[in-house]
Amino acid sequence: MSDVPLAIGIDFGGTSVKTGVLYRGNIIEESPRIDTQEFEAAAPLIFRINETITELREKHPKIEAIGVGMPGFVDFPTGMVHNLTNVKGWQKIYLKRELNQLTNLPVTVENDANCMAYAEWKRGAGRGLHHLVAITLGTGVGGGLVVDGRMVRGANFVAGELGQSSIDYQGPDGAYGNRGSLEDYVGNQQITDLAHAAYTKAGQEKERSECEPAHLTTLALQGDLIALAIWDQVAKMLSTALMNCCWLLNPEAIIIGGGVAKAGPLLFQPLEKHLRAQLSPAFKENLRILPARFGNEAGIVGAATLALEEAGFNVDD
Amino acid sequence: MSDVPLAIGIDFGGTSVKTGVLYRGNIIEESPRIDTQEFEAAAPLIFRINETITELREKHPKIEAIGVGMPGFVDFPTGMVHNLTNVKGWQKIYLKRELNQLTNLPVTVENDANCMAYAEWKRGAGRGLHHLVAITLGTGVGGGLVVDGRMVRGANFVAGELGQSSIDYQGPDGAYGNRGSLEDYVGNQQITDLAHAAYTKAGQEKERSECEPAHLTTLALQGDLIALAIWDQVAKMLSTALMNCCWLLNPEAIIIGGGVAKAGPLLFQPLEKHLRAQLSPAFKENLRILPARFGNEAGIVGAATLALEEAGFNVDD
Repeated sequence: MSDVPLAIGIDFGGTSVKTGVLYRGNIIEESPRIDTQEFEAAAPLIFRINETITELREKHPKIEAIGVGMPGFVDFPTGMVHNLTNVKGWQKIYLKRELNQLTNLPVTVENDANCMAYAEWKRGAGRGLHHLVAITLGTGVGGGLVVDGRMVRGANFVAGELGQSSIDYQGPDGAYGNRGSLEDYVGNQQITDLAHAAYTKAGQEKERSECEPAHLTTLALQGDLIALAIWDQVAKMLSTALMNCCWLLNPEAIIIGGGVAKAGPLLFQPLEKHLRAQLSPAFKENLRILPARFGNEAGIVGAATLALEEAGFNVDD
Repeated sequence: MSDVPLAIGIDFGGTSVKTGVLYRGNIIEESPRIDTQEFEAAAPLIFRINETITELREKHPKIEAIGVGMPGFVDFPTGMVHNLTNVKGWQKIYLKRELNQLTNLPVTVENDANCMAYAEWKRGAGRGLHHLVAITLGTGVGGGLVVDGRMVRGANFVAGELGQSSIDYQGPDGAYGNRGSLEDYVGNQQITDLAHAAYTKAGQEKERSECEPAHLTTLALQGDLIALAIWDQVAKMLSTALMNCCWLLNPEAIIIGGGVAKAGPLLFQPLEKHLRAQLSPAFKENLRILPARFGNEAGIVGAATLALEEAGFNVDD
């Protein structure tokens, strides 16, 4: 173990910060979560994160780098966090510089969806591939793109926002005025709404909570036709955004993770059908649609792996 | 002139093949067009193209490379043309190998939309940029993408097909079963149909030919409200596909060419409005929406420039 570099991965969420130590793609220790809502400003929260880092480094002296995944736009080279909507005081915070000064370790700060994509690319379902589309389906919809063996960050380091891409030019306004954004069709809430409306229309009254994706999966596995139809509908809508990625980027694989992906074949089978029906042979012959390897740990794994690579370590072994 | 390399660019269209000599981004000579419909198979047409090349080389002995833009999918490394729908006998034709054997010059074969994007990137509106989306609006809609200073070709070299991306998941089936493909909304014919229907609905009977994009431009410039509304509608539909490119790739610029782009401000002004209204500040602050520099000559310029670069010459001067 002595020659393999360790890294700390920090998964900064809207409600809590998770921190873990990564060794060869595995989290070997995880610290107690930090509740972001206890902090009124960025500085004391960064101070608290640094305490966690110090504790982990005392146990694991071989830690070589720190990676942080943030739930918002990040200026990748400077590691500046533009703005967090759910955490107080996080506007234009130079997190990379702050943590680097506190720890004297190389620090990398990246958008959380890119970290998840990075985890799948380097340690998960996309290992060894050069052209990838990764998507996470949960409350929101996030994405990360790999083109020609490089993460796509774009001119301002904000690329990969699959959830904001449109599937209907006449759709309702999204979070940024973007009409018909995917997130507004296949997010957790939207799937629940869709199912609730379908059951109501069919004369089967259900509580809204009974229409959540996890329940729909159970119902569909029992042969419930409405639940099956909802998953088919979700797959159809999702296939449009993924098809667009295929026509634009011609990836080798699409990797799908997040809570909604737990529906498994109920989602993946109709998705394969809808997606392949809308691509020419040149695009679909080698295309693979894969479930993500990582679940909640993707953020820590991706951030730590990215930090090691940015610090000059080879993570492709 | 003696130290600057010359190249031949070949713009292979559905009905004719155009061939020209490029010197520093300018076409200094163009050969008579070859009519593709006179040929029943690939071999005699390739033979005829080679005669044109020979004639040009006799006049310009400094020609260093040959580039060909094809109206179909190309396997870029081998220069194999998969299939042409409008020209007889073009299935799995190893054009790069054939022309290379006939001419003993380095040959590059690429999709025509990528050639146009390449012309704009290296010699036109996108010079010096590293993140570009280029789109050509005509009978069909083509695209080319530059990410991190590299042309995006994808796993099977078929990336960049903006015209096949969807703007409506419930739209009509496109050429490949792809529902709601952009090409089926903003192609020449579709704009004409849209305008014809709008005038008919308003009780102003017009010939279909009077509703073509060029006529709509004239009418709109005269203050015709229906023509203005059609251009706004085209801009709205187009903005959705371009917005998707922005959310996915965060480009520095979008370059718009092709016959339909001749509408100028009638298209570009509403497009700016619709596009910027659907992007977050991080995406739009530096975004530029630019008219293409090149018109019909883009194919020759792009193919020849790409061929020079692939042959090891610096074309960024």
